Amino acid sequence: MRIITGFHAIEEELRVLESNLEGKNSKGKKTPLPEGLTILYAKPGPRVKKILELAGKLGIAAEETDPKKLDALASALPPLARDHRGIVFQMAHADEKAPLRLEDAIKQLAVKEKAIVIILDSITDPHNTGAIIRSADQFGVDLVIIPEHRSATDFEVIARTSAGASAWVPIVLATNLVRAAEQLKEAGFWLYGADAGGTPLGQLAFADKAAVVMGSEGKGIAQLLSKKCDAIVSIPTRGRLDSLNVSVAAGVILYEITRK
Amino acid sequence: MRIITGFHAIEEELRVLESNLEGKNSKGKKTPLPEGLTILYAKPGPRVKKILELAGKLGIAAEETDPKKLDALASALPPLARDHRGIVFQMAHADEKAPLRLEDAIKQLAVKEKAIVIILDSITDPHNTGAIIRSADQFGVDLVIIPEHRSATDFEVIARTSAGASAWVPIVLATNLVRAAEQLKEAGFWLYGADAGGTPLGQLAFADKAAVVMGSEGKGIAQLLSKKCDAIVSIPTRGRLDSLNVSVAAGVILYEITRK
Repeated sequence: MRIITGFHAIEEELRVLESNLEGKNSKGKKTPLPEGLTILYAKPGPRVKKILELAGKLGIAAEETDPKKLDALASALPPLARDHRGIVFQMAHADEKAPLRLEDAIKQLAVKEKAIVIILDSITDPHNTGAIIRSADQFGVDLVIIPEHRSATDFEVIARTSAGASAWVPIVLATNLVRAAEQLKEAGFWLYGADAGGTPLGQLAFADKAAVVMGSEGKGIAQLLSKKCDAIVSIPTRGRLDSLNVSVAAGVILYEITRK
Repeated sequence: MRIITGFHAIEEELRVLESNLEGKNSKGKKTPLPEGLTILYAKPGPRVKKILELAGKLGIAAEETDPKKLDALASALPPLARDHRGIVFQMAHADEKAPLRLEDAIKQLAVKEKAIVIILDSITDPHNTGAIIRSADQFGVDLVIIPEHRSATDFEVIARTSAGASAWVPIVLATNLVRAAEQLKEAGFWLYGADAGGTPLGQLAFADKAAVVMGSEGKGIAQLLSKKCDAIVSIPTRGRLDSLNVSVAAGVILYEITRK
């Protein structure tokens, strides 16, 4: 059984099924709906209604249920996908997507010629993590690596502020960011630390395979991780205060990398 | 009497006094401290302690007091400066800084050759407004215009998430953004609306006097205001979700304008 949460992720999945039905996919072949599809919902807000409409058009059954049942179904998902917000899409005969493992993710990126990875080092405010994941989606980031140790509430806030992107962007929860950095370098990545006093962004030629480390606003990047960086990159500003909000800084760096 | 709130704003003011004492200011003349300077504090956190240390070095009196007294002193300030966070700097013989009026602010900018203005149109999340004000400081924005109608709690969150910049960056609360836009255009500004489907950022040559309108994430820029724009600018992305977080988008646009 496969469970999908997140308004965007469910909508995307329904759109894939719609394209298959109409033969508008890459294979150009009409594919009927698989068996055992159900939308389960508890809170029929405007967004849920939009999904129900789309599901209805495709002939997929929808069933109102207890929020606790949704909690139970979502509890088996990775932390960032557990915030169901009143609706889940159940695919009875599909395989559950296994959570992405760091080794597998890096192996997939090792064979690519171009890729962008973001490593979030001790960014404590989950709003910032969520906004960065959202930017990662927009700028086509291939992988986001975040530290594993976060509270359940944190993961909820991250999922919400990512506006659904956390159910979509490839994210790995890592126990050891220094080890992750080493593995990325072995896979051909150059490591860039975002911090004060580095090369001004815009004067730096990023490698085709770039991993950017964002540190916490107060403390910057942990020393052990900072030592692994091939270059430190700074955003030239002329402000009187400390620095940009970390999610704004990450957005500006991603814009600059993808602009070129 | 002048009341200063905000860790950063107080620190900056103390540093100005220090430079004057040491004759390190632009006039190169040693100036003694004015009379009637007092630091009033209620919560001696690490940041407050740092300020008390600096004040002590300069021989400025510090006095522990009731938080309610600080509330009362700050209540006469403009909304964005009322969040005192346990410390205020009282200058008994200085003139209270009058709140910036839109007409005066625009008059000052009319004679400048280069200037950047940000107009925030119906951005409901105060975290976003705060982060944008912080970016405005970092990228040297000359004026931020925000709608007047916000709750007191909103203003508190804005002040906090701006990391002190709201006590620093020139901000005007406007009742009518369309009228503000017209006045800016009369003062020589070009008006750019940030929205989907416009000229890709990076392909647009911004005028030396640029006013950027940021709309709400859901609804974009209000139609009447959008009509006043000389150009619509978009951030090229390849994501599957709706858009960037509005504070990230504002940061990227400010980076691009100041980069050139």
